[in-house]
Parts: sequence; C-alpha cells; structure tokens
Amino acid sequence: MDRINVGLLGCGTVGTGVARLLIDSQDLIASRLGAELHLKRVADVDIDRDRGLKFEAGVLSTDAEGVVNDPDIDIVIEMIGGEGVARDLILKAIANGKHVITANKALLAAHGNDLFRAAAQHDVDLYYEASVGGCMPIIKSIREALVGNRILSMVGILNGTCNYILSKITDEGSSFETALAAAQRQGYAEADPTLDVEGHDTAHKIAILSALAYGMEINLPDVYVEGITGITPMDIEFAGQFSFRIKLLAISKALVGRVEVRVHPTMIPFDNLLSNVNSTLNAVTVTGDAVGDILLYGHGAGMMPTASAVVADAVDLARNQLAHTKRRVPALSFHIDTIQPKPIVPMEDVVTRYYFRFSALDQPGVLSTISGILGQHRISLRYVYQKGRKSNGAVPVVMLTHRAREADVRRALGEIERLDVVDQKPVLIRIEDDSDQD
Amino acid sequence: MDRINVGLLGCGTVGTGVARLLIDSQDLIASRLGAELHLKRVADVDIDRDRGLKFEAGVLSTDAEGVVNDPDIDIVIEMIGGEGVARDLILKAIANGKHVITANKALLAAHGNDLFRAAAQHDVDLYYEASVGGCMPIIKSIREALVGNRILSMVGILNGTCNYILSKITDEGSSFETALAAAQRQGYAEADPTLDVEGHDTAHKIAILSALAYGMEINLPDVYVEGITGITPMDIEFAGQFSFRIKLLAISKALVGRVEVRVHPTMIPFDNLLSNVNSTLNAVTVTGDAVGDILLYGHGAGMMPTASAVVADAVDLARNQLAHTKRRVPALSFHIDTIQPKPIVPMEDVVTRYYFRFSALDQPGVLSTISGILGQHRISLRYVYQKGRKSNGAVPVVMLTHRAREADVRRALGEIERLDVVDQKPVLIRIEDDSDQD
Repeated sequence: MDRINVGLLGCGTVGTGVARLLIDSQDLIASRLGAELHLKRVADVDIDRDRGLKFEAGVLSTDAEGVVNDPDIDIVIEMIGGEGVARDLILKAIANGKHVITANKALLAAHGNDLFRAAAQHDVDLYYEASVGGCMPIIKSIREALVGNRILSMVGILNGTCNYILSKITDEGSSFETALAAAQRQGYAEADPTLDVEGHDTAHKIAILSALAYGMEINLPDVYVEGITGITPMDIEFAGQFSFRIKLLAISKALVGRVEVRVHPTMIPFDNLLSNVNSTLNAVTVTGDAVGDILLYGHGAGMMPTASAVVADAVDLARNQLAHTKRRVPALSFHIDTIQPKPIVPMEDVVTRYYFRFSALDQPGVLSTISGILGQHRISLRYVYQKGRKSNGAVPVVMLTHRAREADVRRALGEIERLDVVDQKPVLIRIEDDSDQD
Repeated sequence: MDRINVGLLGCGTVGTGVARLLIDSQDLIASRLGAELHLKRVADVDIDRDRGLKFEAGVLSTDAEGVVNDPDIDIVIEMIGGEGVARDLILKAIANGKHVITANKALLAAHGNDLFRAAAQHDVDLYYEASVGGCMPIIKSIREALVGNRILSMVGILNGTCNYILSKITDEGSSFETALAAAQRQGYAEADPTLDVEGHDTAHKIAILSALAYGMEINLPDVYVEGITGITPMDIEFAGQFSFRIKLLAISKALVGRVEVRVHPTMIPFDNLLSNVNSTLNAVTVTGDAVGDILLYGHGAGMMPTASAVVADAVDLARNQLAHTKRRVPALSFHIDTIQPKPIVPMEDVVTRYYFRFSALDQPGVLSTISGILGQHRISLRYVYQKGRKSNGAVPVVMLTHRAREADVRRALGEIERLDVVDQKPVLIRIEDDSDQD
C-alpha cells in the first residue's frame, strides 16, 4: 500500500486532535484513500506533556525545522498559531516543495496574499479548510460545489465564543460580563477574549471567505468590525418584541465592481435559520446565482471537529499525490493570475436598516424632535416604540428604520446625542432582513 | 486553453438548466477550472421546443447513441430519468470509457450496485451529487469533507414536495388533499404524486446516502417506507402542543454490524433545526464521530439548483481529466472491493418513541384499558392527553411513549383497535428526540 507522509507542527489542543484522528482512524482513512496517511513527525516545544497518544519512537520532537526539511514528508500541517514562527515555517515548507495545511485564520487574513503567491511560485498547495467554520466544509463547498455559481452574498455566524455569549444573554437575561465569565469557565472564551468578542476573529474569517468567493485579494484592513461588548439584555428583549434575535454576523455581498464586507451585531428575524443557531455552533448562508441559498452548520471550533477538517484537507492532498498531480483546485477558487484587488465599500456608504434605542426624557415633543432630526438626514421610520412612562426621568425609546445610509445615521445620532432631553449615547444595531428592499 | 467535451442526454427542465449554466457561465467556469468545459452534444427526443438557449449548429439532435459513442466526448451527463433508456445509455457510455454524471436517484437506488461495478470495471467515474439534496453538497461532504469520520447517523428532509405539503398543513391547517392540490398548482408536485408523497423518492435518496456513509451496498428493498398521506391537521396541532413539528424524515443509523434505515413522518422538537426547514427546502444532519453534527440546507430540487450540482460534478471530473487522473475519489466513498452488504434492521425491531392518537368513547375506564394494554406490551407512557369531554361519542386521546419496540407497538395497537370503546384505527407517528435515552 502506498504511503503519504505527514508532518505536524504544533501539538496543542487541535494539533493533538489531528494526531489522534490520524492514528486512531488510520484504517478507516486507508479504506477510503487507498493508501496509508502516515504521521511521520510531530514537533512541539513541549514533548513531555501526556497527550493520551502513543507516538512511535522518534516521531515527537522539538525540531520544527527538521519537519519542514524532512525530504520524506509530503504534507506539512501547521497548528502552531500566531503570525511569527508559523509564517516562517510555512514559507520554509513551501520553499521545500511541501504542501501545507493550516487552520491559522489570523495569519491568512494578514499575510494570505503573500503565502498563496509563494505556494503558486513553488507549485505546491496551501489548504485551509479548518480556518473558517471549523468542521463545516465551507471552503470546499465554495471552491468546488458552487464552482458553477457567481457567489452573490454570504452571511454567517463564525465565532463560537460570541454566539455562546449572545445565546446566554438571550436565554438568561444575563449581562455581557456575566455571560463572558460563563464562557471562560466553560473553556469557550480565552482569558483575554478581545480577539473574539471585539469581532476580529470573525473579520479574519469573512476576509478569507470573501477572497475565495469573489476572486479578490484578501483585504482585512478594510473590513468594518464591531464586537458584542455593548450588547445588553434590554436590546435583546426589544429585538424579541419585533421577532428579531441578535447575532454577531459576518456579512459579505458582491456589488458591481466592489464588495461589502462587515462584521457587527445584527438583528435577524426569527424565521431566518441563522437565528436558531445557538451556543457555540457556527453557520453560514451562501447565496449563489444558480443555487439560491445554501446553509452549512456545525461546530466552528473544538479539538476533533477542527481536526476533522484538517484531516479532510490532508486526504485531499494525499489523493493528488497518489494521482501524481497538484494544485488541482486553485487555493482561492479562481486561478491566481486572475485575482485582483477589489474595493470594499466604506462603512459610511453602506445602506441597511437600523434599530436605535434612545434614553430620552418622557416629555411632550421629545419623539417629534428625535424623528425630525432623523427625517432631516433622510432616515424614515418603520416602527417607534416607547416603553412605559415615567413622570420624571428617562425612558427607552426604540425606533426601527427603513433602509438608510450609515453616514446619515451617524450624523443624525450625533445630533440627537447632543439634545438635552437625551441622557445617554444612543444604541445602534443594524438589521439584516429581506423584507424591506425600499 | 484545454477543452473538456461534455455530452448531455435529455434536455427537459433540469437538462436545460445544465445546458444553460454551461453556456452562460462558461467564462466563470473557465476562470476556476483553467480550461473550457464545452457542451459538445445534446440529445433529446424533442429538438423543436424553444428552451431559450442558443445551441451552436449541430449540437442538439435526437441521436443519444451518437453522444455516448462520440470519441471526443469525455463526460456524459444523463438527465433522461427513469430506469430503462437511461440505464442502457449510462452502461454504453461507461463501456465506451466515458465518465458519467447522473441525478437519477430512482435508477441508482434500484441498479446502483451494478452501475458502480460497471464503472469500476471500465475504470471510469460515475458521479451523482444532484441525485440527493439537489444543490446541497451532501455527497461530496460525506465522501471528502468527512473522510476522517465514522458516520454515525444521518437524518434528513429530502423531498421538497412532502415538505411543502407538511408546511402548508402546519401553517394553514389545510387537509392533505388541499395542500397537495396547492403543491400541484405551484408545480411542486407531479400530476401523479405517488413517488413523492408515499415516501419512495426519499427512500431512494437515503438508500444511496447510507451506502455512501457506511461502505455498504445499496439496499432499497429493506428500507422501511411510510408516506405522508395520513397526516392530518389535528395531529400537527397536537404535535405543536408538545413542541414538536411533523416532517417526513429519512433516518439512517449505524449500529454494530447492521444499520437502521427508515422513512416516515416524524415528530421532531421545535429546537431541532430541521423543524425550521420549511416549504420545498431540504436539509440533512450528518453525525460523525469527530465532527459531531453538521447540517446542510438548500434547494433540493429545481432547474438551476440541480444544474449547479451537476456542473460541480462535471468540473470535478474535468479537473481529473486535466490532471490525467481518474477515479480519484471512490464513487461510494470506500474502495469498491471493501463494500459489503450490510443488513438493515427489520422495522419490527426498531426501538423509538411514539405518538398515538386514539378516538375513544368518553367513558370511565377507557384510559386505563388502553394504557393497560400498552403496559402489557412493555410500552410505558410519558404523557397522556385527552382533549375536551363529550358526554356521548368519541374524543381524541393522545399518548406519548418512552422508547418502545415497533413490534410491541403494532401488537398493542392491534388489540386496542379491536376494543369496542375505540371507534377508529389508531394513529401512530414516530418521534425522533434525543431527550429520552431510556
């Protein structure tokens, strides 16, 4: 039986999952691949920790360079993370003619254009299914299953930490801080949760998907990002009254000659399947001109789900190796020579629907003052809702708009915030809803 | 630029969609494939009908034999349907060394074992993504994305006609007959809807998926099939009171040395994503030992969604052709030599939860008589609900059971049906719910 040799860089949680799957499912994989996918070398800084794995003698070492320089290794799997060592080792493996698999979305979002070019120059594959959506085959689906489609848009829940926190606030009415602490206790959030809760991890993923879908260069800096730290149980409750749930969405749309790519908390209707994706689960809807909408759903993180995606990439590359071919499918779906930069619409020019919550004094004329300012900025209202009445003090006033331009919204809210009758910074949450195309 | 020649057999609705996509998206496909996917010949019995397509001269003819015998054609797409002519032409194309793509689930479910063996003997590929779930990449996902997983189970909504009818009964309280008539008016149901509403189309699909997932031969005759013609608004309403919706599900589970494969109307909890899949949409949940659950959702039928899946297969095979390889991925996921028959558990031995509705006289002792018979057959109850009271005449009595064996249930219901106090055939609907593992 033929043998394809794999080298693994980094044996932390996900790396251990990859090693476990390659070892435990060796026979199963062989019965599908028709060859042995052999874990030849594993490098990690810590070779003493018990990972519950029985490596053959000599497999585990601290010698990462040895892995990328081993002439017998066909495929290198990078599971180190971060943008320093990981990047250098990937480039060395590529230069040595090895195919590379990574789940490192931060690295790809920041340096992917260079890495994919390097892979093209050295005629090797760089695969990355596990970098977005964990075990969901979103990369393969866009690249292969939707190959006959112009991708029109993608809307996804791509960060399990944020989805867990928002689900917790929704279900239990807890504050963001309480929900975050619960996520940390469960191991769903890091000690420093910034990358997740500020939306950056989601931005990395949608930047990668957008490149893949539209044949454009990866453009992280121009992706608008807003996290979930300002989401309150009160806004979730109001959302529910309008049959909306709040999710941290990655939204990406193909426009004429440009694209819209943004990450922010978003209200979506109950009857949108994404609104029923809870806890740490991920899901993404892709709209193509032929297929209409398809949705993929699954665990977006975790040891074995992520390992499953990495092993799928490894088998894919092993099949190529056995067929004496490579670069069978372009890494970014389109042939690299056709990939161009494509401008992302500045957030100020985005047109969508909005939810506003003002904390306003309960006085005659306040509503008309606020809606007057909105009207002056071409923002028309669909619903206005004022909760309760207070004879003295502030009450929440909630407004849902028709489609409006972000720049107009910002200017109007700036004016409203300066009114004497408004006593807090207004809350703004965008709405994603097909029902209003005006 | 290299050119891969495609021949199309059958230019009805889906065939026309395939032709349209190959013609209209030629440049897009070329920018991803790096070669031209060229529709060289199309055969149909009707060459006069206006399909809104501009074929080059000589492309369209009635000569199906000419397509499968054309030495320049690399890939033959069978879109004729049925089990007669389609089967003969596929076998001829295979014998001529051509790769074949089909969406013909009825043919594959009945004759797939022979067809896949023929393809293996002649060293060609037989692809069939569009045969199950339309545009959802369920075949590719099981075969490639989940290649490192033991598939444990699959649960799916795989027939858009049935899902439309059940959604309509649920939303509008209409009868099965009214909902079917609406589906026929909308073009979602055939004039003779038997194949869909009796569950056979769903059975074809789950028979194919089960072979793919478990490395077993296709075994349609042993799949238990029950359609939706007996579903009433009353049972849907009762289901709702227990937070269940009724869907026609295909259920497939790997057991030790055997499998469970069945199709029947099923109650699933509101919080199961499948319960929110409405209208003609399809979805399937696949559970793997590494990934946990993943779900795919999309249009299960329709001209362009189906065409999208067919074209994806064609591009896949074209990539192989360009790389001078074939049979890169085994058609049924496992290498054909390892595929064995695997017994399907007889329905009588299946253990699951049940919903019963009896029409019983409202007399003292009736409930205890019914539950006594159930108890004698080892069926224990979880909920009992009797609607309203009538001083004279029958009332509906609803019971939800713990897990019980189908054979016991059938015997018990037979006894209960013969009681004088029960005036109609009892209704039985199975429940799929993880909450009760007793």
